[in-house]
Amino acid sequence: MSAELFSEERSAEVVAAAFAGTPDPRLRQVMTSLVRHLHDFVKDVELTEAEWEAAIGFLTETGQTCTPTRQEFILLSDVLGVSMLVETVNHRTGGTATESTVLGPFHMVASPPRELGDDIALDGKGIPCLVSGQVTGPDGEPLAGATVDVWQTNEDGFYDVQQPDVQPAGNLRGIFTTDAEGRFWFRSVVPRYYPIPDDGPVGRLLAATGRHPYRPAHLHFIAAAEGHRPVTTHVFVADSPYLDSDAVFGVKDSLVREVPEVDDPQRAAQVGLANPFRTLTFDLSLLRS
Amino acid sequence: MSAELFSEERSAEVVAAAFAGTPDPRLRQVMTSLVRHLHDFVKDVELTEAEWEAAIGFLTETGQTCTPTRQEFILLSDVLGVSMLVETVNHRTGGTATESTVLGPFHMVASPPRELGDDIALDGKGIPCLVSGQVTGPDGEPLAGATVDVWQTNEDGFYDVQQPDVQPAGNLRGIFTTDAEGRFWFRSVVPRYYPIPDDGPVGRLLAATGRHPYRPAHLHFIAAAEGHRPVTTHVFVADSPYLDSDAVFGVKDSLVREVPEVDDPQRAAQVGLANPFRTLTFDLSLLRS
Repeated sequence: MSAELFSEERSAEVVAAAFAGTPDPRLRQVMTSLVRHLHDFVKDVELTEAEWEAAIGFLTETGQTCTPTRQEFILLSDVLGVSMLVETVNHRTGGTATESTVLGPFHMVASPPRELGDDIALDGKGIPCLVSGQVTGPDGEPLAGATVDVWQTNEDGFYDVQQPDVQPAGNLRGIFTTDAEGRFWFRSVVPRYYPIPDDGPVGRLLAATGRHPYRPAHLHFIAAAEGHRPVTTHVFVADSPYLDSDAVFGVKDSLVREVPEVDDPQRAAQVGLANPFRTLTFDLSLLRS
Repeated sequence: MSAELFSEERSAEVVAAAFAGTPDPRLRQVMTSLVRHLHDFVKDVELTEAEWEAAIGFLTETGQTCTPTRQEFILLSDVLGVSMLVETVNHRTGGTATESTVLGPFHMVASPPRELGDDIALDGKGIPCLVSGQVTGPDGEPLAGATVDVWQTNEDGFYDVQQPDVQPAGNLRGIFTTDAEGRFWFRSVVPRYYPIPDDGPVGRLLAATGRHPYRPAHLHFIAAAEGHRPVTTHVFVADSPYLDSDAVFGVKDSLVREVPEVDDPQRAAQVGLANPFRTLTFDLSLLRS
């Protein structure tokens, strides 16, 4: 026998050696690193056979909970902070542009194009809110014709795609195009905090570890402009519960905004909202691509 | 906001803090370690979003390939050396007893009880082989009445449970009880090397990484005796292909045995086998429980 046989001491090296012939160098690198960290984990906790069996059962059930409209493995990645880490590693801004956060599982359909000023709250529920901002390049130059794709929950904490029989199609989502000064504005409602789906294996993991399934109230954005790197992010509502314990770790300080109340019937009439209403201002700065 | 928010630098600490309230201390320890090693892996390779998506798809398909008779996640654990590592960590012998190896996925049914000397090769195929050995305690004392549960592939490289319509039920498996001197012996055939199921996602992973799916020829054993720790192990055939590249890393030097040919018609008649035949001797030493 020429190759080294398995031993507890050298387990990661022996298994990594089996991947040494991987034709694609990047796949070889990823598998080698995965093996090393996975074996480190097993040795670190001295995983028991009963725990290993429980892990096999958990992973199997997680796979079998997935359907065309539910992705339980993404949820698992989310609650372990892996989705957020991958997002962050791949979108370092160096502090000079709007920070990114997770896309989340509810950007499942193309949002309808809207006109500036449109009301995206088609179900007539919730606290009226005027959302506005400016999209700029790295030196503050306005980006005219940028697209701003937004989506959020309704007053009950659900996205339209979660309630196809309850909410009007396209409720609380839309794609806006910035004006000559890079500005956008539209009418909506204040988004609401909500639980991630917690009736599957990931929900049971949260329960077993004393964690709640909630995300703080937020509005999703994808801003894109020619010649610039798009950003996928949220703006979070400053007075929302769960801001410091987001189940998927999406909150960054730079993404939190106050949503002050405006009590001014004239201004309300001007923007087409009931009085009083809230305002949410979120400017986005993009890096050049 | 009181709790620390997510950052690339402190991602593992921030996520681990979310598990700090886990009521069960062992689960808290396991999840904290898992988070740390998983985040180390993502940072180590700077996993791209496309790779993360591929991983989510792979894990989902692995879960959805599982059926009541196929466990693709165990197969994944096997080819990453995790099954073997868990087995080894939980059955350290200190070099004073028979080493263990993986149970494998084919011990799915209770093996039929057999009499010493029985022939377990019910399908009449293969190279006849007399298997014998002695079960002893740590000081070499014979263990009378110990049970020896054995199972192996037939000449075509399949277990009976894989071919319920082809092989007789209980083919090449059985439970023997040692005699007053702790000895066991039975008639069988030389086992054959075989591929693990490779038509699913794990098979595609092996193909993409230039690995073959084969296991070297072996005979499974579970030996158990009152007052002693049972051992789950294999004996490997010394001249088998793949001894130095077992797809599941199960081979240990101490478990490999020659299977010499005996060409002696008188001895063949005595043991009830066709001449010539092979002999395989495997003694098992158990630790006290």
